[in-house]
Amino acid sequence: MANAHPPSPSPEHSYVDYAYDQPGSPPGTLQIRADAPPPQIVLIDYNAKTAVRQVIEAPEDCSPYLDTRSVSWIDIQGLGDESIWRRIAQVFELHPMILEDVVNVPQRPKVEDHEDQLVVVTHMVMVVPDQERFLQEQVSFVLGPNYLLTVQEEPRYDCFDPIRARIRYRKGSLRQRQADYLFYALLDAIIDGYFPVLELYGERLEALETKVTDAPHTKTLAEIHQIKRELLSLRRSVWPHRDAIAALLHKDNPLISTDVKIYLRDCYEHVVQVLDMLETYRELASSLMDVYLSAVSNRMNEVMKTLTVISTIFIPLTFIAGIYGMNFNPTVSPLNMPELNWYWGYPAVWLLMLAVASGLVAFFWRRGWFENFSPADSSAKPSG
Amino acid sequence: MANAHPPSPSPEHSYVDYAYDQPGSPPGTLQIRADAPPPQIVLIDYNAKTAVRQVIEAPEDCSPYLDTRSVSWIDIQGLGDESIWRRIAQVFELHPMILEDVVNVPQRPKVEDHEDQLVVVTHMVMVVPDQERFLQEQVSFVLGPNYLLTVQEEPRYDCFDPIRARIRYRKGSLRQRQADYLFYALLDAIIDGYFPVLELYGERLEALETKVTDAPHTKTLAEIHQIKRELLSLRRSVWPHRDAIAALLHKDNPLISTDVKIYLRDCYEHVVQVLDMLETYRELASSLMDVYLSAVSNRMNEVMKTLTVISTIFIPLTFIAGIYGMNFNPTVSPLNMPELNWYWGYPAVWLLMLAVASGLVAFFWRRGWFENFSPADSSAKPSG
Amino acid sequence: MANAHPPSPSPEHSYVDYAYDQPGSPPGTLQIRADAPPPQIVLIDYNAKTAVRQVIEAPEDCSPYLDTRSVSWIDIQGLGDESIWRRIAQVFELHPMILEDVVNVPQRPKVEDHEDQLVVVTHMVMVVPDQERFLQEQVSFVLGPNYLLTVQEEPRYDCFDPIRARIRYRKGSLRQRQADYLFYALLDAIIDGYFPVLELYGERLEALETKVTDAPHTKTLAEIHQIKRELLSLRRSVWPHRDAIAALLHKDNPLISTDVKIYLRDCYEHVVQVLDMLETYRELASSLMDVYLSAVSNRMNEVMKTLTVISTIFIPLTFIAGIYGMNFNPTVSPLNMPELNWYWGYPAVWLLMLAVASGLVAFFWRRGWFENFSPADSSAKPSG
Amino acid sequence: MANAHPPSPSPEHSYVDYAYDQPGSPPGTLQIRADAPPPQIVLIDYNAKTAVRQVIEAPEDCSPYLDTRSVSWIDIQGLGDESIWRRIAQVFELHPMILEDVVNVPQRPKVEDHEDQLVVVTHMVMVVPDQERFLQEQVSFVLGPNYLLTVQEEPRYDCFDPIRARIRYRKGSLRQRQADYLFYALLDAIIDGYFPVLELYGERLEALETKVTDAPHTKTLAEIHQIKRELLSLRRSVWPHRDAIAALLHKDNPLISTDVKIYLRDCYEHVVQVLDMLETYRELASSLMDVYLSAVSNRMNEVMKTLTVISTIFIPLTFIAGIYGMNFNPTVSPLNMPELNWYWGYPAVWLLMLAVASGLVAFFWRRGWFENFSPADSSAKPSG
Amino acid sequence: MANAHPPSPSPEHSYVDYAYDQPGSPPGTLQIRADAPPPQIVLIDYNAKTAVRQVIEAPEDCSPYLDTRSVSWIDIQGLGDESIWRRIAQVFELHPMILEDVVNVPQRPKVEDHEDQLVVVTHMVMVVPDQERFLQEQVSFVLGPNYLLTVQEEPRYDCFDPIRARIRYRKGSLRQRQADYLFYALLDAIIDGYFPVLELYGERLEALETKVTDAPHTKTLAEIHQIKRELLSLRRSVWPHRDAIAALLHKDNPLISTDVKIYLRDCYEHVVQVLDMLETYRELASSLMDVYLSAVSNRMNEVMKTLTVISTIFIPLTFIAGIYGMNFNPTVSPLNMPELNWYWGYPAVWLLMLAVASGLVAFFWRRGWFENFSPADSSAKPSG
Repeated sequence: MANAHPPSPSPEHSYVDYAYDQPGSPPGTLQIRADAPPPQIVLIDYNAKTAVRQVIEAPEDCSPYLDTRSVSWIDIQGLGDESIWRRIAQVFELHPMILEDVVNVPQRPKVEDHEDQLVVVTHMVMVVPDQERFLQEQVSFVLGPNYLLTVQEEPRYDCFDPIRARIRYRKGSLRQRQADYLFYALLDAIIDGYFPVLELYGERLEALETKVTDAPHTKTLAEIHQIKRELLSLRRSVWPHRDAIAALLHKDNPLISTDVKIYLRDCYEHVVQVLDMLETYRELASSLMDVYLSAVSNRMNEVMKTLTVISTIFIPLTFIAGIYGMNFNPTVSPLNMPELNWYWGYPAVWLLMLAVASGLVAFFWRRGWFENFSPADSSAKPSG
Repeated sequence: MANAHPPSPSPEHSYVDYAYDQPGSPPGTLQIRADAPPPQIVLIDYNAKTAVRQVIEAPEDCSPYLDTRSVSWIDIQGLGDESIWRRIAQVFELHPMILEDVVNVPQRPKVEDHEDQLVVVTHMVMVVPDQERFLQEQVSFVLGPNYLLTVQEEPRYDCFDPIRARIRYRKGSLRQRQADYLFYALLDAIIDGYFPVLELYGERLEALETKVTDAPHTKTLAEIHQIKRELLSLRRSVWPHRDAIAALLHKDNPLISTDVKIYLRDCYEHVVQVLDMLETYRELASSLMDVYLSAVSNRMNEVMKTLTVISTIFIPLTFIAGIYGMNFNPTVSPLNMPELNWYWGYPAVWLLMLAVASGLVAFFWRRGWFENFSPADSSAKPSG
Repeated sequence: MANAHPPSPSPEHSYVDYAYDQPGSPPGTLQIRADAPPPQIVLIDYNAKTAVRQVIEAPEDCSPYLDTRSVSWIDIQGLGDESIWRRIAQVFELHPMILEDVVNVPQRPKVEDHEDQLVVVTHMVMVVPDQERFLQEQVSFVLGPNYLLTVQEEPRYDCFDPIRARIRYRKGSLRQRQADYLFYALLDAIIDGYFPVLELYGERLEALETKVTDAPHTKTLAEIHQIKRELLSLRRSVWPHRDAIAALLHKDNPLISTDVKIYLRDCYEHVVQVLDMLETYRELASSLMDVYLSAVSNRMNEVMKTLTVISTIFIPLTFIAGIYGMNFNPTVSPLNMPELNWYWGYPAVWLLMLAVASGLVAFFWRRGWFENFSPADSSAKPSG
Repeated sequence: MANAHPPSPSPEHSYVDYAYDQPGSPPGTLQIRADAPPPQIVLIDYNAKTAVRQVIEAPEDCSPYLDTRSVSWIDIQGLGDESIWRRIAQVFELHPMILEDVVNVPQRPKVEDHEDQLVVVTHMVMVVPDQERFLQEQVSFVLGPNYLLTVQEEPRYDCFDPIRARIRYRKGSLRQRQADYLFYALLDAIIDGYFPVLELYGERLEALETKVTDAPHTKTLAEIHQIKRELLSLRRSVWPHRDAIAALLHKDNPLISTDVKIYLRDCYEHVVQVLDMLETYRELASSLMDVYLSAVSNRMNEVMKTLTVISTIFIPLTFIAGIYGMNFNPTVSPLNMPELNWYWGYPAVWLLMLAVASGLVAFFWRRGWFENFSPADSSAKPSG
Repeated sequence: MANAHPPSPSPEHSYVDYAYDQPGSPPGTLQIRADAPPPQIVLIDYNAKTAVRQVIEAPEDCSPYLDTRSVSWIDIQGLGDESIWRRIAQVFELHPMILEDVVNVPQRPKVEDHEDQLVVVTHMVMVVPDQERFLQEQVSFVLGPNYLLTVQEEPRYDCFDPIRARIRYRKGSLRQRQADYLFYALLDAIIDGYFPVLELYGERLEALETKVTDAPHTKTLAEIHQIKRELLSLRRSVWPHRDAIAALLHKDNPLISTDVKIYLRDCYEHVVQVLDMLETYRELASSLMDVYLSAVSNRMNEVMKTLTVISTIFIPLTFIAGIYGMNFNPTVSPLNMPELNWYWGYPAVWLLMLAVASGLVAFFWRRGWFENFSPADSSAKPSG
């Protein structure tokens, strides 16, 4: 059965899937999970001419790069060690609330202005290659005048490799641009990452559609419910991106140039497309539930027809046979079952039974009840 | 069966039906399908006095026309050859994002201002003559000061022929007008093209309505689901047109004169009408699903009634026959089935059975259960 | 059956019910139906002192009246003759788009400013007296400085007669007022005309409600679907009136005086009332669909109970009878059916069967299954 | 049955429940019902020191009170006599549209500014003491500089008595305040009057909930539909109050002092609470419909299980009995039913039948089908 | 059964759950329940250096603290004694409407500006430790220049203890801040308190999901309805918080500093998260209702299949046995049941019956009807 439908691409977080503070704890309290990997810091510093990639050990080593006019991309993967995070906050002068948003994952995607920093929280989804499931993690951006800080939950494969390659091999105009363009490029990669996930769901829905009409199974129902639940969860993840990017477009912020806004507009279009499709999928899944219900009703109908046809044909016949199994004594009265002593009695009963059966079969035929039993020639009958 | 219902006018694109970039690819990356036809460029240059139609080989041949004061309509069909597209972008000074929108089809319909160019992305639908299906493709407009660039996906029959004729034969005021009016005329043709498609769906819905109440079939369900899916998809295609045209109306753009805006208002009205109707169709399709479910329930009811009527009439009769088929020995006791030796025994049993059967038939009759079996005179019975 | 429910007050236009141009045709193209009646023009010119009613043959005969300071109401009924319409457009200096809106019916209700003319498109509904159906046609208004042009689709009974009488017999203040007040009076008559139509639907819904709970029939379902469809269609017709009148209220237009706006506010209230009620009706119709489904389920339940009660009582009895119909040879063994030779054998079997039947009846009675069979005293049983 | 559920607190007006003019009648036409009681006018004139209550015979007798600086509350009950109403309009200088709103009941609740008068139309509901139903009537307010005119439909018990007492016995600060505070006090009494009505519905819903799960009856369905219909109607009555009071709060009107607006804000909160609860009730009623449907399905399931258990146990047994009731002649062949002559034949058949029956019972037991028959120990079985 | 699902975390207030005045009572009338505990007043006065906690006996004892520049937090628990409340109102100069909001619980959450006081009404939820239910009570805030008044319904465990500890042990920056920050800290604690409640519902929904697909029981339905009802009630409680906090963020109020607004933004994010999840839960609960309905249908299907399979196999067999139980007299005619005297008669009948049974079993097998009986190998069959 496992191969019959694509396995569930269930996201990692589910149900109560926002990080929340212990009620009453002071703002800025960090919630570090015990098994969270320690942060790995990679700095890429580039301008049109040179590009340096460096693995940073101590957060303070970033400081010299922040003052230069070249673009510094500090990519931190892993949320593990509170003391290191406190030092990172110091180096980048992060407001305690920013630190909380970045470390206490997952947060709702959003955009926040903090004087000379722009904080953007997003969710990245990645289809695991060759598997029909996807991973989801929070990616936070802190955009400063000449630097971009990105924070990912875990040090693993992300969707930023093509951009790292574009920096390294000078593909496109990325190297000539400022930090805001880098921010756009990464954001765009995250948004575009939703499309392959949507494709997974499209395939699953199509598989379910076939299943529902061809062979509805009790499990199909649970699958439809599951897919609805996941789409709800995904929509809840995507929807705030739309508002966040719209806020980026409409607010005047010196950190984002008008030129880059043209590109962000494209990003916005893509989020709207993703939402459009999610909405459509959700409506399709709801409709599938109805189709399933109808298909079950149809099958029940078929079962009932089978029972009814066979029962109503044989019950009268059995009654006739029962009549002539009675033991009325023909010797005490000429009225007592004289049929039993007729010469043609037995054949006559058979004829009677044949007539009754034929009549009923004809009745059912005319009402179109045999249709479902021979789907091949169903179109030949008057109705279904 | 294939002729019993109109074949599905399914659009060409479905499910994940927006073009999206490989996550992380630089903006402006073109995605040329291997089988895409190479672009065919046709230029029509006209003013009130003269009109020239010319097939262009090299994109650069357009340049001289762009500087003249006459209106130049450059119609490009086919998205095939990346190098040609790069040259086209050069000639028309297209921003990389414009080029991407135009070539990476399909995009969501939208309007974008780019300094002295106005980019409008639309979807054109065309009913294939004599077939009950329609084609859908993206048509992009780039409106410049004296020229209009239109880009279609494939070189085939489009809905612009009447406008080409109006230019050629000086029908209406088109030849006296500027490029913005040409743009309006083409946009209007695209919007009006949705009406025949709606008519197709109207006919399908009406056919389904008849089918659902007269002869609900298992396939009917799948058809309703299919039509809902297609209407969702169509609505997703039309809806952004509304926003796009509203943006055209409300933004001040020197490329579109106040005079033409009066005409665009008409265009807007038409999009709203299309959406109105799509919404109505969608609600009707949903209601049809309910009607179908009820119809299935009704049929099941009918099946159950048949079973119940025949079973409950014959089961007691069979029981009576069974009684007198017992072999109690009348010789050991006068109490042992003396009926078998009565003179009127057998006729009396028949009378008893007739009485039981009549009583049950009367019971069912009074409850109105025979109604469905003779629909012709169903109104004569008390209820249904 | 035809008399059992009020006949459908189906509007004249259905499904694709907006006029649309052949894609690509120039704006302003008129679509005159071959069977459309030629326009009949009636001019009523009045001021506080005098009132003249004149049937106009040639459109040009209106011109002298337009220049006077008295109010001229030109009422045109019939959309038949293109040449006359071109002349009308000339006389009243109508923009080609106005002419198109007025002649290519039906359009969506709307308000449009055209320099010194205000164009309002509305739909008039009229209940046909003594019949339970209504007619629907487009009425367009062109309000100029001293005149009001109204265009109706057909020369027949309309809802303007009371206003004609108010002009003729100086009822109310109409004769003292300007053209804008006349426009209000006519618009108000059109809006108020929706209430009797709503009353028709109210009655139909009430009739359906009774039917659904008392005697649900397969046709009832189709009727509910039909009423939903008509309410959707009616709402689509009413909704734009609301926006149109709101636009009249909020836009500053010299053609409409502040004084008349107080009256238009009343008109707006009425449209909102109509929409309120339509919305309520729609929700009621949806709820009726659910009630119908439940009623069908209830009836099926009743059918199943009948079958179950009779089957489960008689099947065990028949089994017992079958036992003693077996032919085991009592002579070869004292164990072989000695009951057959007992003195009280036959009565004992009857007692056994009575006991079984009574037990089952008691079982069903306690579960309340007999309730539905005697609705009169259903409240006496424990549950239902 | 009548006592089993609270009787329907059906409002007085239903379905087409707005007053509408005969289409085409002049604005301000009064629709006086023949059986409407003549207006009874009671004037209460008070200031901080004195308070006078006087029954007014001729409307003109109010005039002297209007000019004084004391607050005059003119309460008119009954809409009967057109000539008196014309005189009232004269005395209070009411615009014809105000008169129409006040007399042609019911109108949609609303607020309208008319120069130095503020017109507020509301609906008052009153639970009839000791009966589970409520009355609904329109109460209109005309607030002038020093007076407040209130118009009720009928001269009967209203919810203003506590306020009359507060004036008479100087309770609270009412006597120190202006007419706007009196207006607030009356409006607040009207709004608070909705809560007891809501409580009625809350009780009905709770009663229905119990009924639906414990003993779903066919009538329950009609009751749920009825309650939905009434809630829809009530919501339509309450909703415009919200907009009306919000308009009072946000518009600057010299007739309402800033001080009183603080109190009106409280009034607004209460309307929102009423709407909140209505919305919740409506969703609960919808959910109840689903619960009802499921409960019906569950009962059908139970019925089917009963039938299936008994049928499938006895049908095979009856078959076995039928076998040994066959009359094959054992004398012509040793193969012909030798069992009949076996010594242990009859007991062996009983054993066989017992084995079959036990096997089937065990099968059904394992599938948990007996659960419903003994709800007390249903948790002991594996599933249900 | 009680342990099988988490007990209902039903809130304390239900249905008509807003406090409302007796219609017509003067504003500011207090509704003190007879069993309400008398107010216990605790004052915490702190600045960066010192912090004093004092139990206040007479409200007037608070006065001296209000004039100091240190922050005074007056926490009142219990709404019992009207005279004390009147004195409290005097001391804090509370407007009668504020007093009403604070004492007449529950009110709808809201924010109100009153000159130099800011009133915020909120609902606090607390999960009872080790029990799967939560308490709900109103907490009102009155924020003045240097003080914060909080009013709780009952003197019992609340969620403010961590904040009291932060004041006492100088955790975080609370001691350095003003009253507005204290207000934020308490509000944040209240909002964060919703998350554990949501987690309870998440667990209950997950438990219901398992139950619905594995073992749907009649009670499951009532539980789903119950959870929907509670979620509706919870949403009605949370929703106004969102508007209230948004109002705090967007209004300029000298009592709340810009600095604290950054923190309130976080609070707002959390409310939106809570609403997001509530909405998702509600949709899941609705979907569960559908799943339940389908599961019931599926079980009915299974029951019907069992009945149909056994009935349709044995009914024909019984008929055959019935045939040979007839008593036609073979001696009067060679046509009368010669089979009974055949040598192979009895075995032949058995063969015939086996053939019929096998044919029917094969028929059902091919249609996949046996699938449900052996779920373990259900994937081996063609469909289901």
